[in-house]
Amino acid sequence: MAARIIDDLRTPCLVCIKSIAEANASAMLGRAAQLGCALRPHVKTNKTLEASAIATGGSKRRIAVSTMAEAHFFAAGGFDDILYAVPITRDKVADALKLRSTHEFHVMVDSQEGFRELAAAVSANCAGNSSASPPLDVFVRVDCGYGREGVCPFDAASVDLVRAIASSAGLRFGGLYTHGGHSYDASDAQAVRRIGEAERDSVAALAGALRSAGLPPPIVGVGSTPTCSLPPADLDGVDEMHPGNFIYYDMMQARIGACGTGDMALRVLTRVLGHYPSRGMMLVDLGWTGVSSQGSEHGYGSFVDFPGLRCAKLKQECGEVVAVHGAPPIDFAAHPLGSILMFAPYHACAATQQHTHVHAIANDRRTIVGTWEICKGW
Amino acid sequence: MAARIIDDLRTPCLVCIKSIAEANASAMLGRAAQLGCALRPHVKTNKTLEASAIATGGSKRRIAVSTMAEAHFFAAGGFDDILYAVPITRDKVADALKLRSTHEFHVMVDSQEGFRELAAAVSANCAGNSSASPPLDVFVRVDCGYGREGVCPFDAASVDLVRAIASSAGLRFGGLYTHGGHSYDASDAQAVRRIGEAERDSVAALAGALRSAGLPPPIVGVGSTPTCSLPPADLDGVDEMHPGNFIYYDMMQARIGACGTGDMALRVLTRVLGHYPSRGMMLVDLGWTGVSSQGSEHGYGSFVDFPGLRCAKLKQECGEVVAVHGAPPIDFAAHPLGSILMFAPYHACAATQQHTHVHAIANDRRTIVGTWEICKGW
Repeated sequence: MAARIIDDLRTPCLVCIKSIAEANASAMLGRAAQLGCALRPHVKTNKTLEASAIATGGSKRRIAVSTMAEAHFFAAGGFDDILYAVPITRDKVADALKLRSTHEFHVMVDSQEGFRELAAAVSANCAGNSSASPPLDVFVRVDCGYGREGVCPFDAASVDLVRAIASSAGLRFGGLYTHGGHSYDASDAQAVRRIGEAERDSVAALAGALRSAGLPPPIVGVGSTPTCSLPPADLDGVDEMHPGNFIYYDMMQARIGACGTGDMALRVLTRVLGHYPSRGMMLVDLGWTGVSSQGSEHGYGSFVDFPGLRCAKLKQECGEVVAVHGAPPIDFAAHPLGSILMFAPYHACAATQQHTHVHAIANDRRTIVGTWEICKGW
Repeated sequence: MAARIIDDLRTPCLVCIKSIAEANASAMLGRAAQLGCALRPHVKTNKTLEASAIATGGSKRRIAVSTMAEAHFFAAGGFDDILYAVPITRDKVADALKLRSTHEFHVMVDSQEGFRELAAAVSANCAGNSSASPPLDVFVRVDCGYGREGVCPFDAASVDLVRAIASSAGLRFGGLYTHGGHSYDASDAQAVRRIGEAERDSVAALAGALRSAGLPPPIVGVGSTPTCSLPPADLDGVDEMHPGNFIYYDMMQARIGACGTGDMALRVLTRVLGHYPSRGMMLVDLGWTGVSSQGSEHGYGSFVDFPGLRCAKLKQECGEVVAVHGAPPIDFAAHPLGSILMFAPYHACAATQQHTHVHAIANDRRTIVGTWEICKGW
């Protein structure tokens, strides 16, 4: 049977240039090793067993997830040492205990209130259960200046929270976790590095206070893709970093300077539906359903192979392609009706969410070497 | 077994207040009847057999779709008279002919170039096939001033295109179709009505020219949800209208004035994950994965039951909820950790795309009366 090629695919669809994802994983694993820490890839970007296996260097150990659906999907898919990296609520505790009974599965809190809910739910769940699960490791989320969730690293109440976890039946203190999400708003590499330093320094400060209190954190983790791609000079005191986007990278990361455009592994394939020379426009079957509406102010992404083209507007199932300002008019003959264009999304995580599968392609950018299921739901 | 209630659902998830969707369908069917035309609901908004059955008044006949996946899904689900309302390309012709062999299935073109591709593909597909399908009805898309796709209604070339279709083996002229998508940018009801008049007048003009040429259009269709909700005084010469969003409506339509907020049938359910009084903020498990990032400048939608709350920012799996400017601070005690909030999305079509199912709920806003599959893919 002939190898499947991209021309066989219904468009729009998601493809991943496998060798680029592999190179991105190698580079990040190497960077972590050089900085003396482990890599815990956040798999919410790709949500596939295959790309996540690549991100772990093949070990399938030590990942972060953002939904219980991902937790179950990866646990069933042979992964282990899984951190649910969102503050947990009572409705998810039964799932967590079930996962913990078969896997190294960890959860997260960032307040006394959240801890009490968790402890009460664990207690209620274990009450009628004679075969107790191993204790649930609980990470504490630390705010490093992002200002969304997380405890203050310099507050004595944060030490009290860890003490409460450590002395609670059925729970165990798992470590500290921070995420400098404001690195996505950084204007240059220097600003990203300062945020990486803030990630490191905030968890290191709380870790020091915890050691003084006899509560040493088993694991201290930091990271966002920008801060892990443009890291501080050292990550002393940090055990692991947990970027996610790096496996694919995208136009947003390229704008921040966290990658080059050659590091972008993801594409959405789209076909030309119509030529409108009088409007200087081509219609393509790429809508926000296929790539998301994120990055509209930057053309939603880039036709990397045709830098003279840009997406002016996306509707539900169609996009308007025009010439970049200052570039020559569209060469319609070069893009016949039905021909395929490759579009690198502005935000790889958002484009992935729009699809159920991603096709891995070879370096010829044509041969399909695998079709990977994307975890859906919550 | 006790009835399932919304508290049993993992969040975020999509729910539809069934009686509101039914009332929206009744109102639109009534409006169409009053204007002397049929309703061909565009099902791309809801992508479910159940909501689309409601939209057709139970007939399951006469719908528009925007993807081949929808075409197959609805054909297999008992629907018929299905119009693929996007200019077709060669790669989809085999699917179209297959659907045509069992269903009233129609396609669309908007150029001589597109027609030639279609005719050649039909010819190639039928060459080796002795049991010929019935002829494929081809609609011609008309531009009514939206300026995206569609032929010019006043151009003699548009008549030539219809003549070419009508005289092509295996094809049949199906009718005219226009969509005033610029009604979404209209500033008030008067502006919407003017666009509705432009929809009507553009297809009526081309229909007149076609009748003079001996090529009367079997069906003349117009419509977008704004122009069908705030229609012109008459739709003389129009056979059917094809809005889609009306089955759910949303905050975008309410802003345009096409519906009231009480007509919004769709909600995303989200749970409170954290309280941050010092930041005046609650964290919820609603990210752009759950509702899309559309309408960010309008808070992504509305907590209709709590008008003092708004979404300040959505990340992948979390949202920041703050008090509306000028409103009292958040009453955290009223929203305990794990409690559910109902969020009406800014754009119902975009929120639907983020999910695999929608749960229909009763008027108590609590009891689940059905779980409807959302068609995925292309």
